[in-house]
Amino acid sequence: MRLRRAVRSKNAVLGIGDDCAILRVPAAHDALVTTDFSLEGVHFRRNWQSPECIGHRCLVRGLSDIAAMGGRPIAAFLSVALPRELPQRWVDRFFAGLLRHAEKYEVELAGGDTSQSPAGVLADITVVGSVRRGKALRRSGARVGDQIYVTGAFGESAAALRLLTHKKIKRRDVFPEPRIAVGEWLIEHRFATSCIDISDGLSTDLLHICEESGVGAVVNAAAVPVHPSAGKLRDGFNLALHGGEDYELLFTAPKNSRIPGRIASVQVTHIGEITSGSAVRLSQNGRARVLIPAGWEHFRRDERQNRRR
Amino acid sequence: MRLRRAVRSKNAVLGIGDDCAILRVPAAHDALVTTDFSLEGVHFRRNWQSPECIGHRCLVRGLSDIAAMGGRPIAAFLSVALPRELPQRWVDRFFAGLLRHAEKYEVELAGGDTSQSPAGVLADITVVGSVRRGKALRRSGARVGDQIYVTGAFGESAAALRLLTHKKIKRRDVFPEPRIAVGEWLIEHRFATSCIDISDGLSTDLLHICEESGVGAVVNAAAVPVHPSAGKLRDGFNLALHGGEDYELLFTAPKNSRIPGRIASVQVTHIGEITSGSAVRLSQNGRARVLIPAGWEHFRRDERQNRRR
Repeated sequence: MRLRRAVRSKNAVLGIGDDCAILRVPAAHDALVTTDFSLEGVHFRRNWQSPECIGHRCLVRGLSDIAAMGGRPIAAFLSVALPRELPQRWVDRFFAGLLRHAEKYEVELAGGDTSQSPAGVLADITVVGSVRRGKALRRSGARVGDQIYVTGAFGESAAALRLLTHKKIKRRDVFPEPRIAVGEWLIEHRFATSCIDISDGLSTDLLHICEESGVGAVVNAAAVPVHPSAGKLRDGFNLALHGGEDYELLFTAPKNSRIPGRIASVQVTHIGEITSGSAVRLSQNGRARVLIPAGWEHFRRDERQNRRR
Repeated sequence: MRLRRAVRSKNAVLGIGDDCAILRVPAAHDALVTTDFSLEGVHFRRNWQSPECIGHRCLVRGLSDIAAMGGRPIAAFLSVALPRELPQRWVDRFFAGLLRHAEKYEVELAGGDTSQSPAGVLADITVVGSVRRGKALRRSGARVGDQIYVTGAFGESAAALRLLTHKKIKRRDVFPEPRIAVGEWLIEHRFATSCIDISDGLSTDLLHICEESGVGAVVNAAAVPVHPSAGKLRDGFNLALHGGEDYELLFTAPKNSRIPGRIASVQVTHIGEITSGSAVRLSQNGRARVLIPAGWEHFRRDERQNRRR
């Protein structure tokens, strides 16, 4: 299978067809690079989502990391291994979903690798972007007293997963959007002291900010925006707090910053404050308890520790 | 599992630990990007090679693509999915092999992704490098009358594979080197009109040059450097001609270029000439016949066509 050239970015000098792609990073900018797996049976199931949705989500993993640094994507590279028996129609629809999303964000699919798969559909997406030199939003800049903000709402992907695993529904497509324009706005207005995208879950990713910044945090439970589809479920709040793959941004800003209620047409909500110490706490009904992260990465860590025993 | 930071490159501003790595592309340079799978059961077998060798070869796939463009590598990104039952010792040795090779070429392991694997060890390597703007060696520049050169010798990996599949040996480690210094020399001396690395096999990769340049070629069979370990086998010449994963460079240069017999301590051999037309021919014992590519990629294409029937 040859990858097709579908989207052209002005910063992709040479795309598919040579040993490497050639990309031009704009003057006074650095390159951003991120890479993320989408593995059948681990990150998705073919009978739970449409091929278009799987392709879309494969790319959004990478784009969202670029957004979290305040960058602009230039090009994507897709390594994809396909099982022998996979219908060509599935492959075409997967690419259609991925390329439609690439086009929307002017990202060129500039290369990759193809292979036969030993088991299931195996995809790995690399996204290269650019950011003004020295201006990238990092995880490590949060300071005591900074206020914590999030974009959008939480729990939609986790709610779908819950309904699918409990066999309440057979299929559910969720198409998250990467918050590229929000990240760029944050760099332009110099408000954010730190930023991360919520891929592993709000509780886990806030802990990443705290760990990298050497601080603690308190989250106001009542303020956490729960997605309507999670809100319908009994434990929707927990899904919003710990479920992953929301691809919203969490950022911190000094206390007196005037953060608007919407940035680039996306809702922005104030959910808490950076504190001293290292614990992340949840303030609910006047009491604060330690928020134990239960997102995807911590699940993985536990898995790994079990293995080593 | 967290990836460890082991090698530091001056152009890697920020490595593992944030949403993206930040890389600095030197002034007046463009970025090069390449990505390559190493899948258990497709590209390697755990009982045929040491973990160190598998790690080394995983990285060399990417470094060799950078070499083929005349670039210098900056950083590598490894996505790796591991089966639950894999011993930690295997993982450590795989990383040791990869990181030793990264250190030799001053490449920083600047990020990646880790996951549980649905089947076998699944690795995807992305390498980002840089090349002087507008100077990259491309596949498309060969002109009629140009002479064809190759580095090193051919058939070592294919010979090992042959012996392993025929159960003549149980294990064989082959550690190819990427020809980074040769590629840089070619750019500096402005000799090469086109260049490719031999990953799919000499016959297949020469055809890539011809297709991209719109030319044909004739190869002098007697001149093809056969690796001693292939030379010992009855059909060693065919292994040298069609076997892949040699990671040598093939380049073309105008007729009167003074190409030395060694570049950056690597043997360079004149093996043929670019012709008009589009066929690649092999000249042997005074007769020329069309050289039908039988490398890895053509094998894959046939596989794919079979599937569609």
